[in-house]
Amino acid sequence: MSILVVGSVALDTIKTPHSRCEEVLGGSATFFSFSARLFGQVNLVAVVGRDFPARYLKLFKEKGIDIAGLEAAGGETFRWEGEYEWDFNSAKTIATHLNVFSDFNPKIPAQYRHSKYVFLANIDPEIQERVLKQVIRPKLVACDTMNHWIESKKKQLTRFLKKVDILFLNDGEARQLSGENNLLRAAKAIFKFGPKRIIIKKGEHGAMLFSKNSVFCVPAFLLEEVYDPTGAGDTFAGGVMGYLANQKNLNDDVLRRAIVHGNIMATFAVEDFGPWRLVSLTKPEIEKRLKEFKRLTYF
Amino acid sequence: MSILVVGSVALDTIKTPHSRCEEVLGGSATFFSFSARLFGQVNLVAVVGRDFPARYLKLFKEKGIDIAGLEAAGGETFRWEGEYEWDFNSAKTIATHLNVFSDFNPKIPAQYRHSKYVFLANIDPEIQERVLKQVIRPKLVACDTMNHWIESKKKQLTRFLKKVDILFLNDGEARQLSGENNLLRAAKAIFKFGPKRIIIKKGEHGAMLFSKNSVFCVPAFLLEEVYDPTGAGDTFAGGVMGYLANQKNLNDDVLRRAIVHGNIMATFAVEDFGPWRLVSLTKPEIEKRLKEFKRLTYF
Repeated sequence: MSILVVGSVALDTIKTPHSRCEEVLGGSATFFSFSARLFGQVNLVAVVGRDFPARYLKLFKEKGIDIAGLEAAGGETFRWEGEYEWDFNSAKTIATHLNVFSDFNPKIPAQYRHSKYVFLANIDPEIQERVLKQVIRPKLVACDTMNHWIESKKKQLTRFLKKVDILFLNDGEARQLSGENNLLRAAKAIFKFGPKRIIIKKGEHGAMLFSKNSVFCVPAFLLEEVYDPTGAGDTFAGGVMGYLANQKNLNDDVLRRAIVHGNIMATFAVEDFGPWRLVSLTKPEIEKRLKEFKRLTYF
Repeated sequence: MSILVVGSVALDTIKTPHSRCEEVLGGSATFFSFSARLFGQVNLVAVVGRDFPARYLKLFKEKGIDIAGLEAAGGETFRWEGEYEWDFNSAKTIATHLNVFSDFNPKIPAQYRHSKYVFLANIDPEIQERVLKQVIRPKLVACDTMNHWIESKKKQLTRFLKKVDILFLNDGEARQLSGENNLLRAAKAIFKFGPKRIIIKKGEHGAMLFSKNSVFCVPAFLLEEVYDPTGAGDTFAGGVMGYLANQKNLNDDVLRRAIVHGNIMATFAVEDFGPWRLVSLTKPEIEKRLKEFKRLTYF
């Protein structure tokens, strides 16, 4: 089953204690796509400027990602510049230039409108809602969000959440959206906005799945080196959605295994700058790490 | 099999966003004992002052904890005062009065000297070493430590670690002791000091077990309310050691299950002030939570 993703494609400049990389391929839809493509067909909707490198367009195509929905606007591509300290826990944004992304008004190509699996990456919740109206009877709708929208468009966001099956957000955002410090209470409060399931990403501390009647906690895979955590959250979501798009049922057990797959995908994302590790990644490597993860966590 | 624990017995004054409790029973050996006593016999070695309430002595005895090694010195009992903010992640120490604990020179009663399981709670590593010399051929030696000893007595600590089977410490201490930010690298560096296994406690983010050839990561149990995290780490160690003292083998699988038991015990510790929840705790309650934990983590 193919997955529709709507989000950003960007050029990132990233500084870490190891190195500095300029104009590397980035953006939420990019990481999601390069992750989910290992599980099946991905259809990408985003916008880039006329300065967007042709080699990156080629890369999407080579990896089987459908970019019929990647609009080329007149103007410059969305750029983000960030820095990580030694602990790699949070990025310090140095500069954000939305450029063509500031006027992004996604039009879903006709051939994507029957998509059964939809992921609306971290964009304005009003745009997320407009996108969803263009999709005809999706089976599973998931979205991500961020502190900026929780602060500036909480009303629009919570209205949109009524239409969402899975909400992805990090622990800080869950606390902010709910006003609750404890994550169990935070999830209970967020359920009142309407999402059927909540997945809380905790970075190096793993992830949590909240369903109405059960909770799942899973640690992160342990890595000796982290090179660049940019895009780990979207890569995680790509793994979750990619796994789900191949399943008949979407029950709790399936969701748990999907999260484990998301977890695994995120570990690859951080092993190199930008999406490069995901670009070279193969199914057997995923299977191998999955086995290692099982060894890491069984008791 | 009985367990020997050497550490502190204190009177704590604790402020949390919920409440304030004065002169509540505390100390590393207290939490360890009230936790481990649910798995078997515990023999406690510590020191209190002449102001130590008789009702607390009675409580130890009522719960089957052997306090023949609890020395009553002339002077005042060790007191600690701390405060927790809403996130409960770290205590802010308001006051520490070591009192009789500053001259603590543990003498192991003759009847404890053949103890097979020994836990040396967070005390001066030179005292830990002196204690261990009094024990005849123990089967398993575990210890805890803290930032204070890593800073002031690193040489003595690392010398002592050669004699230790299991080192318990939290993530911050592991980073400090090793000089490595990444926990996998930190563990590798600490192994060079000699401990056979390292257990890293991450509070609300769970725990990790490092053996020479394998790693185990486990999330923490998710609680809606935390009342007082004081003693959670020693309660965790009490659960681990209590479980191990009942096992024939001390292989990795057994260690993993021990850590899960420690995890569970710590969740009870934080549900009330001081060790009160542990005092009333029963085996069936532990079994019930263990089942809940399995539901929380399986995939």
